[in-house]
Amino acid sequence: MSFRIQKRDPATRARTGLLALGHGTVATPCFMPVGTNAGVKAMKNQALEEMGINLILSNAYHLYLRPGAEVIRAAGGLHRFMSWRHNLLTDSGGFQVFSLAPFRKVDEEGVAFKSHLDGSSHRLTPESVVDFQLLLGSDVMMPLDVCTGPGIDRAEARGALLTTTRWLERAAARWSAAEEPRKGLLFGILQGNFFADLRAESAEGILPLDLPGYAIGGLSVGEPHEVFLEILGASAALLPEDKPRYLMGVGTPDYILGAVESGVDMFDCVLPTRIARNACVLTRQGTLSLRNERNRLDFGPLDPACRCETCREYSRAYLRHLFKAREIQAAVLATHHNIHFMRIFMQEIRQAIADGRFAEYKKGFLAEYGRGTRNASTS
Amino acid sequence: MSFRIQKRDPATRARTGLLALGHGTVATPCFMPVGTNAGVKAMKNQALEEMGINLILSNAYHLYLRPGAEVIRAAGGLHRFMSWRHNLLTDSGGFQVFSLAPFRKVDEEGVAFKSHLDGSSHRLTPESVVDFQLLLGSDVMMPLDVCTGPGIDRAEARGALLTTTRWLERAAARWSAAEEPRKGLLFGILQGNFFADLRAESAEGILPLDLPGYAIGGLSVGEPHEVFLEILGASAALLPEDKPRYLMGVGTPDYILGAVESGVDMFDCVLPTRIARNACVLTRQGTLSLRNERNRLDFGPLDPACRCETCREYSRAYLRHLFKAREIQAAVLATHHNIHFMRIFMQEIRQAIADGRFAEYKKGFLAEYGRGTRNASTS
Repeated sequence: MSFRIQKRDPATRARTGLLALGHGTVATPCFMPVGTNAGVKAMKNQALEEMGINLILSNAYHLYLRPGAEVIRAAGGLHRFMSWRHNLLTDSGGFQVFSLAPFRKVDEEGVAFKSHLDGSSHRLTPESVVDFQLLLGSDVMMPLDVCTGPGIDRAEARGALLTTTRWLERAAARWSAAEEPRKGLLFGILQGNFFADLRAESAEGILPLDLPGYAIGGLSVGEPHEVFLEILGASAALLPEDKPRYLMGVGTPDYILGAVESGVDMFDCVLPTRIARNACVLTRQGTLSLRNERNRLDFGPLDPACRCETCREYSRAYLRHLFKAREIQAAVLATHHNIHFMRIFMQEIRQAIADGRFAEYKKGFLAEYGRGTRNASTS
Repeated sequence: MSFRIQKRDPATRARTGLLALGHGTVATPCFMPVGTNAGVKAMKNQALEEMGINLILSNAYHLYLRPGAEVIRAAGGLHRFMSWRHNLLTDSGGFQVFSLAPFRKVDEEGVAFKSHLDGSSHRLTPESVVDFQLLLGSDVMMPLDVCTGPGIDRAEARGALLTTTRWLERAAARWSAAEEPRKGLLFGILQGNFFADLRAESAEGILPLDLPGYAIGGLSVGEPHEVFLEILGASAALLPEDKPRYLMGVGTPDYILGAVESGVDMFDCVLPTRIARNACVLTRQGTLSLRNERNRLDFGPLDPACRCETCREYSRAYLRHLFKAREIQAAVLATHHNIHFMRIFMQEIRQAIADGRFAEYKKGFLAEYGRGTRNASTS
């Protein structure tokens, strides 16, 4: 059994767990920093390691296009290529094909698309995506799925989920047959767009495969927060209690708290790293834009509550200066802070669940965080 | 006495020394990484510190324009602003006014110029430049000088050096009168373009001021290597034996070796950091362009002889991938390597001088380095 639940919050569906993977055991709920191109942007592996982060995400789509299978095979897998000693989860590429590729065509066999880098033509199938992730040596691999956004009709949503289910069956067959000695776990992905009954139909299709974990796809793609929470709650409740639940692409603190409350265990999002490069940092009082004029003479840390290297050493005024001067180091220092913020945030969530006071923690966090965000956006 | 010579090479004019500054003692010959905008590009202070680098350069011109005196004064000086606990040498801004500003006008009083950032009008005088560097809290400050390039006539070159001398007298008067309790050292700058007799005239003018150190300006600005070596040798020989000699803006290994041989003690250059951001790294076999196709499947380190963090952890193939993917981390890792390369290089130079075998070291280094550079450029 690769997943073991440790504690359950008495008042909500939140739980803590331990997920044993090929490169170490991960405490859940966890947030996975995103390393799109075989590396978390502007972060050294060593810094992630020092924060105790032992699971990051990378993207099969990006790696398939660049540097490509030949290079990673020759390197001896993705861990060796990027010199990362801990766990890797790789996304299948499904989402990227639908969001990045300038052209795509889905048929029963798979998806044909053109590269967003050079326009070259490629084809992914459920089997080829498993094969590529076996080559990468991913500790958790995600299957090819058909992603949909808000605003599509029920028939289209149902068609996408049924294809996703058939593709998952093929992926699972390929994965089961693979003879790699230490192959990673294959998760299933629940789809069904924003139709609760389609989510249930998706669950009926994918749960019999009895995979080691299940992800919730197709949420936080532009829908209203209430719709997100409703479909999320329904989706999480459909998934097995004893397996890890992974909410794909979600990473703002408020969304994470809502999802943890519904029993979700794993998260990933580019947000903390992306906003950092855009001079925006996460604080207890909400997000802070460092370009703001009022930081010009503010020699305090980004977040007085933070003990990260950036906050221990540097001021808001200095980071503002580095961003104004377009210094690389600005992105490095802000990214470090944001990843550290997420790390501490998830640690606190786990502790609150363990102490049976998750609902209280959530309320307190949001009261402070939301207040600050409002202030920041109105100032 | 702030400078003490430790060892002299028996066969050349090379020497090792200790330069006691406000934030620690610096072993010479030394190379100062350049932190133009109050920070060495793509490097953490901590990484510099761990390499044992305790003197870096920053630019008064850039800092004067951004973030400006008000911010740095409020921060309590440049060290505090940028959170750097070791020594800072600041360039006066003279060179930047002449190389960056879209408009400038020199008169006896000083130089008027327009900012390269926003076109705003500014005026620097020998006194204001000293005042600004006192405000910065620089451990070594450079005076305002008139910079000239190759290809100007003797009369113009003489005019520039005479102005530089008169400006230095005014700067020295201001510096002597300053009552800051721990004010940094003011160096003089030798000018005279590529006319050996004008270099001598410059020395006659500036040496009577008996400043704690002297720099050689106006070299390595596009002249042939032979001219560089000739004027450098003549210039260094004009400067007092018992004071540190600083060759401004020079930082390629071959030029440094030639200058150390002539008795130069201090160097600075943007080269190691600038080329790193352009995917070019320094190795024992010369410079290596990581974008080169032949690195695609090369899983060896940047430089097999190097023990830096980048070389210990990452391969040429991985760095090439990061550069192709335009990842910030590419510049971070390559910069780290290049700064470390310069650090070890200077350490070896000091050891070779101490062992009385500098000429031999120089010959051996250049034989290996030059061979590689030729190979790299012809492949």
